[in-house]
Amino acid sequence: MKRATVVFDGVIKSAVLSNDSDILDVANQMEIGISAVCGGRGLCGKCRIVVKDGGDSLEPISNVERLSLSEEELIYGYRLACCTKAIRDGAIRVEVPPESSVEQQRLQVAGIETTASVDPMVEKHAVTLTLSQLENTNSDVESLLEALSKHHDLGSLRIDHTALMQLPSAIRRGKNSVTVTSYGRHEIISVEAGEHTDPILGLAVDIGTTKLAAYLMDLKKGKIVATASSANPQIRFGDDIITRISYASKDERNLKQLQGTVVAAVNKLLHDVCQEAGVEATQVCEIVVVGNTAMHHIFLGINPRFLALSPYPPTVRSEVVLHSREIGLNANPGAYIYTLPIIAGFVGGDAVADILATELHKSESPALLIDIGTNTEVVLSDGRKLAACSCASGPALEGGCIEHGMRAETGAIERVYIDPENIEPGYATVGGASPRGICGSGILDAAASMLKCGIIDYGGRIDKKLNSPRVRLRNGFAEYVLAWKDESTNGIDITVTQKDIQAIQLAKAAIFAAISVLIRQLGIKPHNIHRVFLAGAFGTYVDPQSALMVGMYPDIPLNRIRFVGNSAGSGARMALSSKLRRTEAQQIAKTTDYVELAADRRFHEEFMKALYLPHKDTTLFPTVMQMLGRLRNN
Amino acid sequence: MKRATVVFDGVIKSAVLSNDSDILDVANQMEIGISAVCGGRGLCGKCRIVVKDGGDSLEPISNVERLSLSEEELIYGYRLACCTKAIRDGAIRVEVPPESSVEQQRLQVAGIETTASVDPMVEKHAVTLTLSQLENTNSDVESLLEALSKHHDLGSLRIDHTALMQLPSAIRRGKNSVTVTSYGRHEIISVEAGEHTDPILGLAVDIGTTKLAAYLMDLKKGKIVATASSANPQIRFGDDIITRISYASKDERNLKQLQGTVVAAVNKLLHDVCQEAGVEATQVCEIVVVGNTAMHHIFLGINPRFLALSPYPPTVRSEVVLHSREIGLNANPGAYIYTLPIIAGFVGGDAVADILATELHKSESPALLIDIGTNTEVVLSDGRKLAACSCASGPALEGGCIEHGMRAETGAIERVYIDPENIEPGYATVGGASPRGICGSGILDAAASMLKCGIIDYGGRIDKKLNSPRVRLRNGFAEYVLAWKDESTNGIDITVTQKDIQAIQLAKAAIFAAISVLIRQLGIKPHNIHRVFLAGAFGTYVDPQSALMVGMYPDIPLNRIRFVGNSAGSGARMALSSKLRRTEAQQIAKTTDYVELAADRRFHEEFMKALYLPHKDTTLFPTVMQMLGRLRNN
Repeated sequence: MKRATVVFDGVIKSAVLSNDSDILDVANQMEIGISAVCGGRGLCGKCRIVVKDGGDSLEPISNVERLSLSEEELIYGYRLACCTKAIRDGAIRVEVPPESSVEQQRLQVAGIETTASVDPMVEKHAVTLTLSQLENTNSDVESLLEALSKHHDLGSLRIDHTALMQLPSAIRRGKNSVTVTSYGRHEIISVEAGEHTDPILGLAVDIGTTKLAAYLMDLKKGKIVATASSANPQIRFGDDIITRISYASKDERNLKQLQGTVVAAVNKLLHDVCQEAGVEATQVCEIVVVGNTAMHHIFLGINPRFLALSPYPPTVRSEVVLHSREIGLNANPGAYIYTLPIIAGFVGGDAVADILATELHKSESPALLIDIGTNTEVVLSDGRKLAACSCASGPALEGGCIEHGMRAETGAIERVYIDPENIEPGYATVGGASPRGICGSGILDAAASMLKCGIIDYGGRIDKKLNSPRVRLRNGFAEYVLAWKDESTNGIDITVTQKDIQAIQLAKAAIFAAISVLIRQLGIKPHNIHRVFLAGAFGTYVDPQSALMVGMYPDIPLNRIRFVGNSAGSGARMALSSKLRRTEAQQIAKTTDYVELAADRRFHEEFMKALYLPHKDTTLFPTVMQMLGRLRNN
Repeated sequence: MKRATVVFDGVIKSAVLSNDSDILDVANQMEIGISAVCGGRGLCGKCRIVVKDGGDSLEPISNVERLSLSEEELIYGYRLACCTKAIRDGAIRVEVPPESSVEQQRLQVAGIETTASVDPMVEKHAVTLTLSQLENTNSDVESLLEALSKHHDLGSLRIDHTALMQLPSAIRRGKNSVTVTSYGRHEIISVEAGEHTDPILGLAVDIGTTKLAAYLMDLKKGKIVATASSANPQIRFGDDIITRISYASKDERNLKQLQGTVVAAVNKLLHDVCQEAGVEATQVCEIVVVGNTAMHHIFLGINPRFLALSPYPPTVRSEVVLHSREIGLNANPGAYIYTLPIIAGFVGGDAVADILATELHKSESPALLIDIGTNTEVVLSDGRKLAACSCASGPALEGGCIEHGMRAETGAIERVYIDPENIEPGYATVGGASPRGICGSGILDAAASMLKCGIIDYGGRIDKKLNSPRVRLRNGFAEYVLAWKDESTNGIDITVTQKDIQAIQLAKAAIFAAISVLIRQLGIKPHNIHRVFLAGAFGTYVDPQSALMVGMYPDIPLNRIRFVGNSAGSGARMALSSKLRRTEAQQIAKTTDYVELAADRRFHEEFMKALYLPHKDTTLFPTVMQMLGRLRNN
């Protein structure tokens, strides 16, 4: 029996590896979650680890691993955890890369955690007032300002009308002691009786075309207290931005209706997170909102009509600050809404939040950010400046307009692998429940797996001649059965249809074309991009390898790609907890070059070529082609 | 035939006076309105003029004049215009003092006209924008701010949410030309398509306990465009401040109800003045509000409860600025409300407006201001500093709680004289119509005349033994019939009752006592007061002589007394048209000493003595006593 010691980076305890167990088993024992959809059979290729030391104590690299890992990755020390039994004694050091860590994946879905110092706009100050005597009748406001100036060094604060209405009773109920909520140290937005040490709460909201996400934050700690998400109910007025702009433009009432719909949905999310946290919505003192420019305009009641007309100008680019009561949000009566600034008509505050969260604006070498949604924003840094553009990629990558598409809720198939031997699938679902549909990351995984196994070809066509019950015709169209009806909760076969594959092709082609235009615009080489941030409010982890396999972005080593989840939400949370981040956001919005794709011939040329899987020009994807070649020849 | 030339000060044309005509006749021919209720019979004493030159060409001073004018006035050149025929040739120069000028009286009812230079908070700026091209996609806001900065030297303006919503459509409808309304040169509150040269409109509102007055102003010209007034409908929740405070304090809903009631009434006045001027309420871009502290607090939705509890602190003393939409006024969506600052719990923005309008704060010698209302504010200047107090004087002087009392509307008896020979009355009504009631100035005139003629005595008791059908008992109470039912429009006798006289006594005693306390406080002598401003939103002209006769203020020569009408409204209009006046108002509110009468024994002592007519200590009123003596002995 061989016994090697295994140490995982960042974990204090060590474990023992034998020739009976592999690193995946050891990790499971130690409760270090490593992704493995196929259950350790070497099929799914998800349990990637990096062996930093002692690799010679392990089994040699297997053929299974050669199919899933690139040459470069193999050289770098990448292995599949399920193929790593000990063959001799020794000491092994292992790193679990983010893409394989279940914990990391879970965190990344919500987006990057804010790590910066916390300096929120909203503060609370408890003070005891010296009330006026008959000879010196100060007003309540004067007594309050005097106390605040003495005890908190707060200068001449203005006082909001709602706080003014609260003041006289609060002073008397609190027996001259009150807690004041200030905004930006220049305005009193709320007054409560007595001394309060409750957390100061804020809400960060990401308004996507298809999805809404809300994060209740403790502003003093800069920590998430509760999260909630929902579909954007404006969907009933149109799936995409252009349809909604067109609806809103027809009539002032339509605009009000769209606005009212999203405001009601945000109120619902606000209610949900507050209920989860056991607090009142009126305790929420600031709401930071990010969204693409059309969502932003509609949310604020600004007619988005001209966003759809050349030269597509937004009405306002800088941050907008207004009382939440102005648009009917049920937060604290004195609460403010802050919307992140906008880059252009089709690159909104969500992209600014992405940049803020990934710190792309501080990157000193070329780096790429892709925020996938119904509209996908792409931002490229050449190490000095930023260029951004936006493309319509449709809702497929969010599980929308897919035959069995659904949001990433319990029962959504989120991970797919297909055994190349018999094209039988394996899958994982959100919450581990029986499947009832496929979410965005699942459909992308499925497309990549189907390509790997030759179920679909270079043009995306499903091979109807394959000898498997999984591939069949329905109403004349080919489809691949991912789960039989006896597995599913809704009693129907869950399939990936030819149309679903086409939707993925259209989406990834638009994204790849957008990236190509920016790369040309800034004159950099794809292989010089040292970091790719893959973002999106999917609700689940998108596998960077699957995205690469279908050709969503240039053929860049996988270890340079980071899935960062809902980084727009992360950026919104950062802005919510930090005034400094807001200053940075304003700077980002001002200095990022916008590239308008509608007027760009290059985009359309690139788009046509990128419809192929992975691309019409296969020489652009050597790693992918090599992997496909190896798989198919196997 | 004697023929003297008469010149009136301020009138270019001259006229000829003979021994057949008096100066009242000449003035009537020249359409110089001189007040004369008795039609020139020497009875009413209202047609007072000052003969500046050539007095020796006139009849000598008659007994009739000696009854109406004081020794001092006679020395100063006062005459009654109806007693001044020419007795020799000559050239006569005449001044018509404000109290006798019908035109002046009419103007003074509305209050002093603003004469200062006009520098309103609200401005309009027409600009043409250079819209963005594809290469340089400015937002609409950026294009607008660029144009404003270039053409109007307007720096970094913030833009209100409602203006933001108007902006994109306005730019396109105006073919890149828009008119921007700015507030204080720091915020854009409205954007209209195209170039507009419409006047900029504002509304000044005086919220009295009993009456509301509203003035639509052209802010560029500083001129009144239309006026309207109404009862304060909060009256149904209580006649006086204390009752309303008590109602509002009971329940948050009661406060909302009181606030909603007055807001609805102001909206009605806004609608009325706009209809009269042929404009839309949404053209009104700022609303300046004055009122006593309780009215101010309730209007803003601030619980007034603590105003009624020692030490009676207001919630806020400084100016309050908020969007009119916050409390539901139907002005321009971006319009602001500005409330004048407050001196104390019972001396509000109305008193500050009074001071502003009368320039009491600039007086270099002792001067007194009395703003009569349900609550009467008294302000005294010793030539250096100001002291103010307030007393509850009841609604009698506004025609409230009087048997036949009414507001100063058509048919209200506003002027009364009584012939001492036969105690038969004469009267004038608002609009010259048949009488239907008595307004505040009428009841004061009636009380003074009844005192002069001995119908009431020193204690205010009606002499039931008088041999006249005018004096009678009804339900055991004495009353004086001012108009028989066949004269009145409502078919009933219009009388002045014993209770009405009592109400006047209570009112004037409170006012006199308040003045006495301030005089003692500042240590000045009544005869050193060089100017008394008599103010109040009565709707008609209050005769300073009648007020003196009943002992409302110290026995000061009549020519030092100026009726200034609704000077709170005047001050509100001044603040509306001028930023400079707002700075002054803030200074006034800060530096005026407040004297709390509730805690002042002197007030109660003075009040008891002042219940008599004119006063318990008749030596304080030598002029009045001399006049009463002369009349009664006549």
